[in-house]
Amino acid sequence: MAHDMVKLGLAGYGTVGTGLARILEENGDWIARRLGKRLGITKVLVRNLDKGRAFPPGPKTTFTTSMEELVNDPEIDIVVELMGGIEAPYQLIRSALEKGKPVVTANKALLAERGPELFALANRQELGLYYEASVAGGIPIVETLKQSLAGNKIKTLTGILNGTANFILSEMTATGMDFTDALGLAQDKGYAEADPELDIEGMDAAHKLCLLIRLAHGQDYPLHDLPVQGITGMHPFDIEMARDFGYRIKLLAQVKDRSGHLQAGVFPALIKEDHILAKVDGPYNAILLDGNAVGPIMLYGQGAGDLPTGSAVLADIMALARKTAPNNTGFIEESLPKAQILAPEQTVFRHYFRFTVKDRPGVLSTISGIMGERNISIAQAVQKQEPQGGGVPVVFFSHAAQLKDVRDALSEIDGLSFVCAPTVHYRILS
Amino acid sequence: MAHDMVKLGLAGYGTVGTGLARILEENGDWIARRLGKRLGITKVLVRNLDKGRAFPPGPKTTFTTSMEELVNDPEIDIVVELMGGIEAPYQLIRSALEKGKPVVTANKALLAERGPELFALANRQELGLYYEASVAGGIPIVETLKQSLAGNKIKTLTGILNGTANFILSEMTATGMDFTDALGLAQDKGYAEADPELDIEGMDAAHKLCLLIRLAHGQDYPLHDLPVQGITGMHPFDIEMARDFGYRIKLLAQVKDRSGHLQAGVFPALIKEDHILAKVDGPYNAILLDGNAVGPIMLYGQGAGDLPTGSAVLADIMALARKTAPNNTGFIEESLPKAQILAPEQTVFRHYFRFTVKDRPGVLSTISGIMGERNISIAQAVQKQEPQGGGVPVVFFSHAAQLKDVRDALSEIDGLSFVCAPTVHYRILS
Repeated sequence: MAHDMVKLGLAGYGTVGTGLARILEENGDWIARRLGKRLGITKVLVRNLDKGRAFPPGPKTTFTTSMEELVNDPEIDIVVELMGGIEAPYQLIRSALEKGKPVVTANKALLAERGPELFALANRQELGLYYEASVAGGIPIVETLKQSLAGNKIKTLTGILNGTANFILSEMTATGMDFTDALGLAQDKGYAEADPELDIEGMDAAHKLCLLIRLAHGQDYPLHDLPVQGITGMHPFDIEMARDFGYRIKLLAQVKDRSGHLQAGVFPALIKEDHILAKVDGPYNAILLDGNAVGPIMLYGQGAGDLPTGSAVLADIMALARKTAPNNTGFIEESLPKAQILAPEQTVFRHYFRFTVKDRPGVLSTISGIMGERNISIAQAVQKQEPQGGGVPVVFFSHAAQLKDVRDALSEIDGLSFVCAPTVHYRILS
Repeated sequence: MAHDMVKLGLAGYGTVGTGLARILEENGDWIARRLGKRLGITKVLVRNLDKGRAFPPGPKTTFTTSMEELVNDPEIDIVVELMGGIEAPYQLIRSALEKGKPVVTANKALLAERGPELFALANRQELGLYYEASVAGGIPIVETLKQSLAGNKIKTLTGILNGTANFILSEMTATGMDFTDALGLAQDKGYAEADPELDIEGMDAAHKLCLLIRLAHGQDYPLHDLPVQGITGMHPFDIEMARDFGYRIKLLAQVKDRSGHLQAGVFPALIKEDHILAKVDGPYNAILLDGNAVGPIMLYGQGAGDLPTGSAVLADIMALARKTAPNNTGFIEESLPKAQILAPEQTVFRHYFRFTVKDRPGVLSTISGIMGERNISIAQAVQKQEPQGGGVPVVFFSHAAQLKDVRDALSEIDGLSFVCAPTVHYRILS
C-alpha cells in the first residue's frame, strides 16, 4: 500500500520528542491503517548538533539549530513544539503559524500565559494549534472538552493534575514518611525535576487549570488571578489525622460555576477515602467533571512520561493530518472573554484546622467561640496529647464556611497568647 | 447573533430522545457558541401520534408515523435513530444513508449484529454513521478510541459496560442481599428493564464489546463467536467469600491482544478491592484500557439514563454539524477483516472455585489431585462449615490456568460421588 507521508518538524528532542519517535517507529503501520498516511519526523531543531541521541528520530531526519530553517522548510506539514520555556517557543509558534503551518505543542506554561494571542493568530490563519499533551499527559481531556462534552455546561471540574505532588502525598499517606523524604524519592524515581518548585508549589497544576477553564467555560482566567497553594512542607501529622477521619489529602485544581461566576484555584484538600478521586495514587492524574447533561465523568491515566505524553502529541498530529477544520479553543469566537471571577474570599468549603496550642483550660472554648462568631461551625474536634511545635495539636473539621470568615477567624486566633504556631488549614472536598 | 439551523430528524421519542430535547432546550445558546449553529428537532418518527409527550421536542416539530417521510424530508440534515430493535432501525439507517443523510444512532444491538453492512454503505456514501451513545452512555469512549488513542495499539481493554448488572452486584456486596432481591431493587429504581435478560445474561455488554473490539482493533469479532456468561443466580456466598479474600465481583467485558489473536468475552470476575475498577459501583460504567504508548487509561461515568445518553447523542450531532470528514470505524478500510480469534479454551486466568462436597476425609486431596494433573495449582483454599446444597462449600483460588484444563478438571470433579452440586467458578482479574 503506497501512502502519502505527513512530514513533521520537531522543535526539541528531549523526553517527549524521543517518546514520539519511538511510538512512530513501533506503531507506524498501525497509524497508517488509521490515517491512510504515514507520519515521519523530517527535521529536528536542537540546541547542540553534536549531542548523542539515544533514539534517532527517523532514518531521514536532519538536525538544525536554526528556528528559521525549521519553520521555513516548505516540506514540513506540521510543526511540533516540545522545547519548554516561554519566549523561544512563543516565537517559534508565531512564526510557524505565520508561515501557514499548523502547530502541536505540549507547553502548558506558554499557553496559560500567552495562549490568547496565539489562539487569535491561529484563528486568523485558519490553522490548528493543538495541545492535548499540555494537560494530564496521555489523558484525552482536551479533546473530550472540545468535542465529546462540548454540548454540556460543566458545573464542577476537579483535577489531580500534577503527578509529582500526587506521588509525594501518596507516599506520605502509605508509609508515613515526611515531605522531604517523599520528595527525594520522587526525584530518585525521575518523577520530580531537579528543581521541583513548579510541581510542589502548584504552578504546574495552575497552568493546566487555566487551559481547562478555557476549554470548559470559554473564558480566559488570567493565571495571575488564580489562587494557588502548593504542598511544600505538608506535615505527616495532618495526613495521619485526615486518615484517622477517613480522608486522603490530594493537591487539587478545581473550577466551579457558581451562578455564572467562576470559583477556581489550586489547593491541597481532604477527600473522603471512598471518593473515586481518593483512589488516584502515585504519579497518576485524573479529571472528574460534572456536566449538566452527562453527569459525573472521570478520566484517569498517566499524567507524564515519554510515551503517554507522546501519545497525546500523536493524537493531535493525527487530527491535523486528517485536515479537519481547526477547532482550537472549542469555541467559535476569535478570542474568549475574560472570566467572571468569583472573589476567592467568597469561596465556600468545609475546612480542616490544626491549631497548636498550650494545653490549658478554656483554649477550646475560646477558639470555637471565635469561629462561631464568624459563622464557622465545628463538625468534629479532637485534641491529641502529642506535643508539637511547643504545644499540643487540636484539630477541627468544620461545616461549610466562607474563606473570608476562615481567614478572619484565623488571623484573630493566631494572635492569641496560647497559640504556639501558625494554624494549618486545608479545604475538605464535598 | 444570527445562526444557521442544523435540522434533526428523530426516529423514536422515548427516554433518550426526550433527554436530547431537554439538553437542546437547556443548552441551546451554549451549543451555538461552540458550533456557530443552532440545533433543532424538526421532525419525529413515532408509532402513535396521539400519545401525550411529557416534554415536547421543540416548538416547530412535526410528528409522523412514516419512515419514508422522515428520510425523504429534504430539510433534515441529520437523522437520529433512537428506536430500538433491529429490523426497523436497520431499514431506517439504510434509507437515510442512501438519501445522503448522515446518521447518529444509540443502537448497540443493531451495530453489533449488522454494523459491517451499514458502515460499508456509509463509507460508499462518504457519510458519517456515528454511535457514541451506543457504548457506556455519556462516556466518550468511541471518540477516544477513534481519535485520541488511535495511534495506540490496545493491549487490554476491560469494561464494566452494564449498569444494571453492576448495580445488582454492588448491592449484593454492600448489603448481602440475594440476587433476586437486588434485581427487584434495580427494577424499582428504574435501572433494569421489565425483562432484564439482556442485562443480566451479559448480551447487552456483549453488544457493546463487539463495538469496542472493532474500534480498538479494527477487526470484526462476530457476536455469535463471543463467549458470554452473565450473573443470573449469582450466590451471595461467593460474593462474601470474594470479600473475605479482598476481592469484589464485577461483570466484565474484556478483550486482550495475545500475540495478534484476540481473547475476548463477557464474564463475572473477581477483582482485587484496591484495583481502580473495583471502585466502580452502582449504575456506573467504566472502561480501563492499556495502550502501548499511553499506558493505562480509565474513563468512568454513567452508562445509561436520558441525559447522559442524550449527551453522547449530542456529541455525535455536533461532530456531524461541523461537517468534518466522516470517521466511522476509526480505520480507512471500507470493511474490517474478521477477527483473529483466540480459541476460548486457550484463555488463561486465575480462577475461583466453589465445590460443594460431602464432609469426609480425602475430599480435598482428591480434588486438588485432579486439578494438579491438569496443571491447575492452588494458591489458597478454605473450607467453610456452613452446609449448603446438601454439602459443605470448599473454595479454591487457583494460580493462572488454561480454561480447557479448568473445564476438563471440573467435568471430572463434578462426576465424583462426594460432589453434591455443580461447581461454581469465576475468573480472577490479574
